[in-house]
Amino acid sequence: MVDNLYDAMNEPRYCGIPTFMRTPYITDLNELDIALLGIPYDGAVEARSGARQGPRQIRDMSSMMRKIHHVTRINPYTLCRVGDVGDVHFHKIFDIESSHADITDFIETLYCSAVIPISVGGDHSITLPIMRALAKETSVGLIHVDAHTDCCDEEMNSRYSHGTPFRRAVEEGLLDPTRTIQIGIRGAANSEECWEFGRKHGIRIIYIEEFSKIGVKNVIDEARKIVGDQRTYISFDIDSIDPAFAPGTGTPEIGGILPIEAQALIRGLRGLNIVGADIVEVSPPFDSSGNTALIAATLMYEILCIIADAKHSSSKRRT
Amino acid sequence: MVDNLYDAMNEPRYCGIPTFMRTPYITDLNELDIALLGIPYDGAVEARSGARQGPRQIRDMSSMMRKIHHVTRINPYTLCRVGDVGDVHFHKIFDIESSHADITDFIETLYCSAVIPISVGGDHSITLPIMRALAKETSVGLIHVDAHTDCCDEEMNSRYSHGTPFRRAVEEGLLDPTRTIQIGIRGAANSEECWEFGRKHGIRIIYIEEFSKIGVKNVIDEARKIVGDQRTYISFDIDSIDPAFAPGTGTPEIGGILPIEAQALIRGLRGLNIVGADIVEVSPPFDSSGNTALIAATLMYEILCIIADAKHSSSKRRT
Amino acid sequence: MVDNLYDAMNEPRYCGIPTFMRTPYITDLNELDIALLGIPYDGAVEARSGARQGPRQIRDMSSMMRKIHHVTRINPYTLCRVGDVGDVHFHKIFDIESSHADITDFIETLYCSAVIPISVGGDHSITLPIMRALAKETSVGLIHVDAHTDCCDEEMNSRYSHGTPFRRAVEEGLLDPTRTIQIGIRGAANSEECWEFGRKHGIRIIYIEEFSKIGVKNVIDEARKIVGDQRTYISFDIDSIDPAFAPGTGTPEIGGILPIEAQALIRGLRGLNIVGADIVEVSPPFDSSGNTALIAATLMYEILCIIADAKHSSSKRRT
Amino acid sequence: MVDNLYDAMNEPRYCGIPTFMRTPYITDLNELDIALLGIPYDGAVEARSGARQGPRQIRDMSSMMRKIHHVTRINPYTLCRVGDVGDVHFHKIFDIESSHADITDFIETLYCSAVIPISVGGDHSITLPIMRALAKETSVGLIHVDAHTDCCDEEMNSRYSHGTPFRRAVEEGLLDPTRTIQIGIRGAANSEECWEFGRKHGIRIIYIEEFSKIGVKNVIDEARKIVGDQRTYISFDIDSIDPAFAPGTGTPEIGGILPIEAQALIRGLRGLNIVGADIVEVSPPFDSSGNTALIAATLMYEILCIIADAKHSSSKRRT
Amino acid sequence: MVDNLYDAMNEPRYCGIPTFMRTPYITDLNELDIALLGIPYDGAVEARSGARQGPRQIRDMSSMMRKIHHVTRINPYTLCRVGDVGDVHFHKIFDIESSHADITDFIETLYCSAVIPISVGGDHSITLPIMRALAKETSVGLIHVDAHTDCCDEEMNSRYSHGTPFRRAVEEGLLDPTRTIQIGIRGAANSEECWEFGRKHGIRIIYIEEFSKIGVKNVIDEARKIVGDQRTYISFDIDSIDPAFAPGTGTPEIGGILPIEAQALIRGLRGLNIVGADIVEVSPPFDSSGNTALIAATLMYEILCIIADAKHSSSKRRT
Amino acid sequence: MVDNLYDAMNEPRYCGIPTFMRTPYITDLNELDIALLGIPYDGAVEARSGARQGPRQIRDMSSMMRKIHHVTRINPYTLCRVGDVGDVHFHKIFDIESSHADITDFIETLYCSAVIPISVGGDHSITLPIMRALAKETSVGLIHVDAHTDCCDEEMNSRYSHGTPFRRAVEEGLLDPTRTIQIGIRGAANSEECWEFGRKHGIRIIYIEEFSKIGVKNVIDEARKIVGDQRTYISFDIDSIDPAFAPGTGTPEIGGILPIEAQALIRGLRGLNIVGADIVEVSPPFDSSGNTALIAATLMYEILCIIADAKHSSSKRRT
Repeated sequence: MVDNLYDAMNEPRYCGIPTFMRTPYITDLNELDIALLGIPYDGAVEARSGARQGPRQIRDMSSMMRKIHHVTRINPYTLCRVGDVGDVHFHKIFDIESSHADITDFIETLYCSAVIPISVGGDHSITLPIMRALAKETSVGLIHVDAHTDCCDEEMNSRYSHGTPFRRAVEEGLLDPTRTIQIGIRGAANSEECWEFGRKHGIRIIYIEEFSKIGVKNVIDEARKIVGDQRTYISFDIDSIDPAFAPGTGTPEIGGILPIEAQALIRGLRGLNIVGADIVEVSPPFDSSGNTALIAATLMYEILCIIADAKHSSSKRRT
Repeated sequence: MVDNLYDAMNEPRYCGIPTFMRTPYITDLNELDIALLGIPYDGAVEARSGARQGPRQIRDMSSMMRKIHHVTRINPYTLCRVGDVGDVHFHKIFDIESSHADITDFIETLYCSAVIPISVGGDHSITLPIMRALAKETSVGLIHVDAHTDCCDEEMNSRYSHGTPFRRAVEEGLLDPTRTIQIGIRGAANSEECWEFGRKHGIRIIYIEEFSKIGVKNVIDEARKIVGDQRTYISFDIDSIDPAFAPGTGTPEIGGILPIEAQALIRGLRGLNIVGADIVEVSPPFDSSGNTALIAATLMYEILCIIADAKHSSSKRRT
Repeated sequence: MVDNLYDAMNEPRYCGIPTFMRTPYITDLNELDIALLGIPYDGAVEARSGARQGPRQIRDMSSMMRKIHHVTRINPYTLCRVGDVGDVHFHKIFDIESSHADITDFIETLYCSAVIPISVGGDHSITLPIMRALAKETSVGLIHVDAHTDCCDEEMNSRYSHGTPFRRAVEEGLLDPTRTIQIGIRGAANSEECWEFGRKHGIRIIYIEEFSKIGVKNVIDEARKIVGDQRTYISFDIDSIDPAFAPGTGTPEIGGILPIEAQALIRGLRGLNIVGADIVEVSPPFDSSGNTALIAATLMYEILCIIADAKHSSSKRRT
Repeated sequence: MVDNLYDAMNEPRYCGIPTFMRTPYITDLNELDIALLGIPYDGAVEARSGARQGPRQIRDMSSMMRKIHHVTRINPYTLCRVGDVGDVHFHKIFDIESSHADITDFIETLYCSAVIPISVGGDHSITLPIMRALAKETSVGLIHVDAHTDCCDEEMNSRYSHGTPFRRAVEEGLLDPTRTIQIGIRGAANSEECWEFGRKHGIRIIYIEEFSKIGVKNVIDEARKIVGDQRTYISFDIDSIDPAFAPGTGTPEIGGILPIEAQALIRGLRGLNIVGADIVEVSPPFDSSGNTALIAATLMYEILCIIADAKHSSSKRRT
Repeated sequence: MVDNLYDAMNEPRYCGIPTFMRTPYITDLNELDIALLGIPYDGAVEARSGARQGPRQIRDMSSMMRKIHHVTRINPYTLCRVGDVGDVHFHKIFDIESSHADITDFIETLYCSAVIPISVGGDHSITLPIMRALAKETSVGLIHVDAHTDCCDEEMNSRYSHGTPFRRAVEEGLLDPTRTIQIGIRGAANSEECWEFGRKHGIRIIYIEEFSKIGVKNVIDEARKIVGDQRTYISFDIDSIDPAFAPGTGTPEIGGILPIEAQALIRGLRGLNIVGADIVEVSPPFDSSGNTALIAATLMYEILCIIADAKHSSSKRRT
Repeated sequence: MVDNLYDAMNEPRYCGIPTFMRTPYITDLNELDIALLGIPYDGAVEARSGARQGPRQIRDMSSMMRKIHHVTRINPYTLCRVGDVGDVHFHKIFDIESSHADITDFIETLYCSAVIPISVGGDHSITLPIMRALAKETSVGLIHVDAHTDCCDEEMNSRYSHGTPFRRAVEEGLLDPTRTIQIGIRGAANSEECWEFGRKHGIRIIYIEEFSKIGVKNVIDEARKIVGDQRTYISFDIDSIDPAFAPGTGTPEIGGILPIEAQALIRGLRGLNIVGADIVEVSPPFDSSGNTALIAATLMYEILCIIADAKHSSSKRRT
């Protein structure tokens, strides 16, 4: 079945059962280096919901992707074994902490098999339980692209909403704030704490105004310097992108990053030690055209390329 | 301010701050006979969400409504004092039971002031906490228009999802199943329990096929006979309406009731002893045109007419 | 994997990789009684295209379906082994006759394994090559629901466009016109031939006006009488449905069949000897909401129920 | 050019410059029996505007129409000379009365050439100036299909808004109220005058409830009896149609006429002495899909058929 | 009620009756420093209409706004008393000059109470009557962001259409052309007068090409120099923004200003002596998603911040 | 009729039968210098179709265009005779090569009358048959703006799909690869051949990354140098534009050219020897708003300006 589905990439793009990138659906983790997965959970959203439908629409639009990158000429499928492992299953979807535990369990299984997860949300609360699996032993660095810092203490009286994951991750020792950079931050807030938490803990925040001023290249340089060559996670909230490009999200903030800048940003992270990544907050009900999901799918492909390249290089080094 | 806003109904329909039906926003319950309110809660939905945005869109579209009914010539605003009392506030939106308690508190306040609530959801789970306020002392009868019986025992391991309220209401003694009629039921299920619960407890279920066959008039006759002249609640799930008319909902089932039938059905309930009503499951993200909300607003107006008429008649009788 | 995917029906409806009805993806035909498949081909359309994207969207929306029918209480999954066998692959998508040959080959494989195909188009030209596989030895009868007779001789100088399949099928001896009924026909034409061909060859045409007048029950009776208990095919063009309900199609004609009538019609065919069925002309670009696809998915489920019931009964009789 | 464009009807429906029904664009009125024209004016709307864009979208969608009627087998193009004469030009679009005068002038030119106008609005205020041209000498009867009576005295302090034309027409002696029938009326109002004016003047009002009850056939019988064989005008407001079918309008009222009923209604008027017709209030911004315009175009074709048939018959009688 | 509504900003964004920015609805002008108001008038539009619905949609989307600016850390609500004063009421909506008089009256009332108006249109013709109120005694300077100069002499034979306000304002002595800058101008015209009027009268026009070339910073510098520290008005036409970002407008011109540039532009005006501002030409029917309105709401918040800051500073200076 | 339609440009933009730019419909080629035409063909698309509807929607949106360019002050209508010559007619729409022959025939007729064609597609395969007419005697240079090189050898086993025209044109000697520049190229591919063909044959490819880096001005300089003053064709694929701006296309690739850059690019080609141009791949079903078509119409106007200017200058030189 693997071979068969792999050929799917040569079919017309509207054909076939939509797995991520038209990769094979894989259940045996021993066949995999990189896992593409969906986390259809948006139970921690205090604004407009719908991100639960994100994995479906991104799988669909990801069929537009092809194999060889036009700039780097990386073909991730010749470098690594890549597959779609399906979605995280939830036991109690109305209970945030139980749902987070389901996510942690799923990612841990991948982690134990040395499979790198590229997850598609779902709301941003999912990054915390992912980190609980990936950073249980060693904290990770973070390249976080978003309109919001997601460092509130509480939202709507919850400590685990989609506005709080990175504060919790620092508190739980999963995330090293001094190896964390947040890019694209903007939009008014009801309290300054969302910006102040990071400042106090050594997180580097690049607001959109600075982003525009210094340009992608300098942002990349600084990001690379901050995370260094240690274990690093990438978390990409689609609301970092300007809502004209990515209207399909719950908390849009105008004046965002352009997709072409986001692509360049990810390409600039080539060679880093990426242990996992996610793309979150794509909410299909607010963009039934699929254009937002197309951006998410393309960024997912860009991330896949750099992870496949790094994993391939490191395994070559080991041999 | 009351008088001022009341005149709003003569303004062009796109003008002004949108309250329900362009009625005045009222905070002093002594000024009211009938309260229009929003319950922007969809935390108990296991399918497509978005009903949290229902009150907003229905308020907006309800400006299309005018005063005098073209068939009955009822003008509810000359019969009763009607106002918009705003939305229920929630303390912990990620906790179903806490949110339900907030709803019960709000409705109890209205109930204690002898104000009849017409609520706009929100998902269908809200009817249970409304009933907890209205039927604390005496159980109510129910005219329930819906594609689904909402009599499951559990959904996604929750006993308080939007698929369970009427089972809970029967169990809690709030709802008298022998004075309950469910109209418009259809759609496949994974278990027969949703249909069997009612059958066992004496609920009259009129599936859509029977509805089409016997016609609205006979349905009305039977509904009136079942609920009698005792205290009765109306719960109208917008997914009872065919999704070509009302696509803005989370769990559409094709082959539903036509709006013109729904209007006739409500008009046929004139004279009953209605203690409250709700319209639920309007999910704006699935119908940004507002057409679904226009149906909801018109049905809300129809319900308002019969409640105002009954309340006015009964108060006349008392005097 | 089969068992695993089967459980998918108990998951929230937006979860998982979308196969038809969330049935397992099956490659071994020995595991199957009924095959659900996609035929993403619209190369024979002379009007608005887009039906090539039909299988994708119908797979997605078919997740809304559940197991047990609310009227007949049929659970097709306990009666037969049902699975998604993927899409027909095409070798030369720009060549109608080559593409038709690919379809015939695919269906023949199913036919040789005694698997009944329920196909999702694609444009209506696909029914001809399906019949070439199913009726190679014995001609079939036909219950054809459509706004158009699709009995033109040529369209845009092609004999194999989506307006010609049933004329060709009669000419090729695949279709017995005296065992054929066409239901829902309407809309102006540039020539009377599309209506006259059937009249001359003994096809029973029920125009929408007669349909409305005599009602579904009489239509069913006549359809059953015409096709009898011999091998019969069902071809359902979504443009038979009124375009307010099913706007996602290329050649809409106002004043069509209601979904609730279509459901009743299919249920009324229970017990017939159905050798295959298709649902065609769903064109997602003209209804990105998925509402048209939801109708198609529900009708597909209705067809699945009667085929599973018949197949199960006949196999019981044989044993 | 005429012959050339006429052949346009055999082209694929998306081809060519869109005239109404793909008829030739005609400037010499001597070449015409029936004129199709646009009146892109919505300056008299007090609710949601956009009907100014109606002619454009209806021209576009009218390409879906073909020649021969599937029920009556009328081919209007073999009976009469039919063409698109373009749009009324306006000199002062911000002045209602000046714009109405432009309309009267245009229609008078057609009238003086014995060309029957089928006009596409624009808002409903246009019918008054049309009648001023057509009924200058003799008043006309009226078959008026609409959700509203449009018999207000004033709207927003204007006597010439789109809610007043038929009151003005009666007052000006253009319209014979005793030869007038209004069909499909519904929706609440702020004053009863809109319903009472007609009652007092002998207009027959068929509310939607009566329409549903007595059925199209009886409505036709009554309409024919009321207007008799004298000069009669047809005015079709698209908001008479249920807004699920025709959402593209400014003042939707739920629970309306079905398109299939509207088609039957028009067909039932065959043989009457129709001196002109209009279809109004199609507002494309509220239905960019074109589905509302498709209904308008199909009803325009139905009207064209009966007018062509009558005109042809009467000219045969004269010869 | 004020306090109560103020807290509204901490509620989930979809809750409550939508006032601008969720500020309290205020009727006593003595409670206010800055008034947010709607002017739902589009009777002077010669292209696509719909801006009459602008205030409704912008009120709705403005709930996405919060209190503290992420760059300037201004919280306008701690600096000034801000409230929603509702919409201008119109006596004769079909008469441009009467409607303009209604606007002037409303703004004069605010002006006499020393309340600064931030108005939401409506079409651009509203700026002239606003200026008649604000500049009755002293002419104002103007920072005008737009795709069009709106300096025609007549449009469609009207001197008061939405293409003429600034020419009239200069002629009436309300606007000092030498203290006027127009930013973002582009798009073809039928006559050069729209560009030449400004050139002749000393208006500084920055076409989009120069805008792109010199950058926002230089544009700000020049704007500040031109208007100086005297009384200045800001008029922001949403069609200045590129229509990919702001499609909801009547006369889109491709190749416009980016929202992020517009935000920076407004921030750069901090400290100026702003006597009022408007945001016009948001036409919801052309963007039912609300994305255009979100941009308008965000720019309104940016303007609110600089006005609140200036007003607060100046009142501190006075004390 | 010509004069009459020309005046159409002063009418409100929503009025009249939509020809390209509201120019007169012309059948006598002697009356023309520049022909605007539609080529409604998308039979060679392997991805999402719909470009067959492109000419219709672009004609509609082109009414937004006016006469005088705001930068260059060119009025093409005073320099040249410009008209709409309608659409290419197709004899066998299901046969690519036959359809291509129809295109070649149509363009040859224009070419023989010394009329310069500006064509609106349709898919990109149409450029090959256009070149067969224009470059029969002398090969042309090419300025090709696109996301894709369209230099594949085969797609889906066809040598004439919309992914192959420029390879065929080189092979057939119609296109001089050394006088060819491709601008905006991006997106992953399944094989490197699409990029390598150009590299081997001397085509200059400017990938989007280089485009962003060097800027429009340098791209223009290089384009002018490459094509020189010899006969040159412009082919503009709308998918070169970023899909946030131009979602209405079949194969969107994120991270594209901005419309303002595209406008500047075309203006920069003023004075070149342009023998024809096309704008292709606008697929209305994927953008029913018309925003993509508005971009196409504006770029068409920009191209018209430079061609009219060059043609006028060259004819002046000749006289």
